[in-house]
Amino acid sequence: MTLSMRNQFPGTVTSVTAGEAMASVKVRLAGGQDITAAITADAVEDLGLHADTSVVALIKSPEISLASA
Amino acid sequence: MTLSMRNQFPGTVTSVTAGEAMASVKVRLAGGQDITAAITADAVEDLGLHADTSVVALIKSPEISLASA
Amino acid sequence: MTLSMRNQFPGTVTSVTAGEAMASVKVRLAGGQDITAAITADAVEDLGLHADTSVVALIKSPEISLASA
Amino acid sequence: MTLSMRNQFPGTVTSVTAGEAMASVKVRLAGGQDITAAITADAVEDLGLHADTSVVALIKSPEISLASA
Amino acid sequence: MTLSMRNQFPGTVTSVTAGEAMASVKVRLAGGQDITAAITADAVEDLGLHADTSVVALIKSPEISLASA
Amino acid sequence: MTLSMRNQFPGTVTSVTAGEAMASVKVRLAGGQDITAAITADAVEDLGLHADTSVVALIKSPEISLASA
Repeated sequence: MTLSMRNQFPGTVTSVTAGEAMASVKVRLAGGQDITAAITADAVEDLGLHADTSVVALIKSPEISLASA
Repeated sequence: MTLSMRNQFPGTVTSVTAGEAMASVKVRLAGGQDITAAITADAVEDLGLHADTSVVALIKSPEISLASA
Repeated sequence: MTLSMRNQFPGTVTSVTAGEAMASVKVRLAGGQDITAAITADAVEDLGLHADTSVVALIKSPEISLASA
Repeated sequence: MTLSMRNQFPGTVTSVTAGEAMASVKVRLAGGQDITAAITADAVEDLGLHADTSVVALIKSPEISLASA
Repeated sequence: MTLSMRNQFPGTVTSVTAGEAMASVKVRLAGGQDITAAITADAVEDLGLHADTSVVALIKSPEISLASA
Repeated sequence: MTLSMRNQFPGTVTSVTAGEAMASVKVRLAGGQDITAAITADAVEDLGLHADTSVVALIKSPEISLASA
């Protein structure tokens, strides 16, 4: 399967905080950065996410903003 | 200024492709990854973006999806 | 690969309109609906999209709004 | 009222799971697919959503990604 | 029709810049602010948008970020 | 720091409702409108948001839809 999303970064889950509807999942990317994804609690369960799960973070280009110094 | 966006990654612009309304901007992150942001052509002009501009990529958590192997 | 995106709908591309940076791609879903996705022109090229390509439309839950009558 | 959102799909709510801030709402579309929308808990209350409410799911084109086989 | 989108601001279109796939539309809100929406070129045509068209800008809550001083 | 986000509106927080993962934050804009942002609970804590905090609401152009009468 090839995805149209231009931005696909492998990493490892470091923590999962689940609420009733949504969950925030922290991931340490292979490049060393820490990211936070907010996904549904259902998705956390379906993917079986927990600390140490290997994942790929996916981001669509129109969702990325830029700042200059 | 502190931003609510959890994901802020410094990098350097590698290319800018501008259309009438939108532009795609490629950025090499400090972590080594290449990302593509789609922003308005107006924003490219206002920020004066071109190859070698230092930028920070900003991503809101609900915009990030995850895939597991 | 399992995706966190709750909404994955198979369909067939019916048209591609590409600009410099972005492209709009119309897809007839298996359920009979027509959808329009706006993705980067680069993604259209990488996925080799044209009329009759089989695709899956992917939508993250926080991107869906609801209206009641 | 005419909406710029290209993607408007009628359906019926099948379940609502509300947290403090956000809620996930499952909808069976007229085309037969099941979708999940993540909206604010306030919106669930304002629209009076519950199982069997008729709704229209609304999705902006830049929020839709595509995958090819 | 009642929309789940928490943020609905009336205004008047001040300019439209259309590319092949996407268009940027500037709107002067009733509150005095200027906003820019990026929508498909198809939507501009369907809504018949031009300078002086009355519109309502619609924004889903998970799309809004905050900055503190 | 200059942001690519075209839409930056100053205002004052009027309420914060925090769940486990996400929070909804209501803001009265300087233009008189009330907006609701859904951000992570972590971001609420990091920015120290509470009623009366001065903030700027930030919105990327592709996240704004339009409706005509």
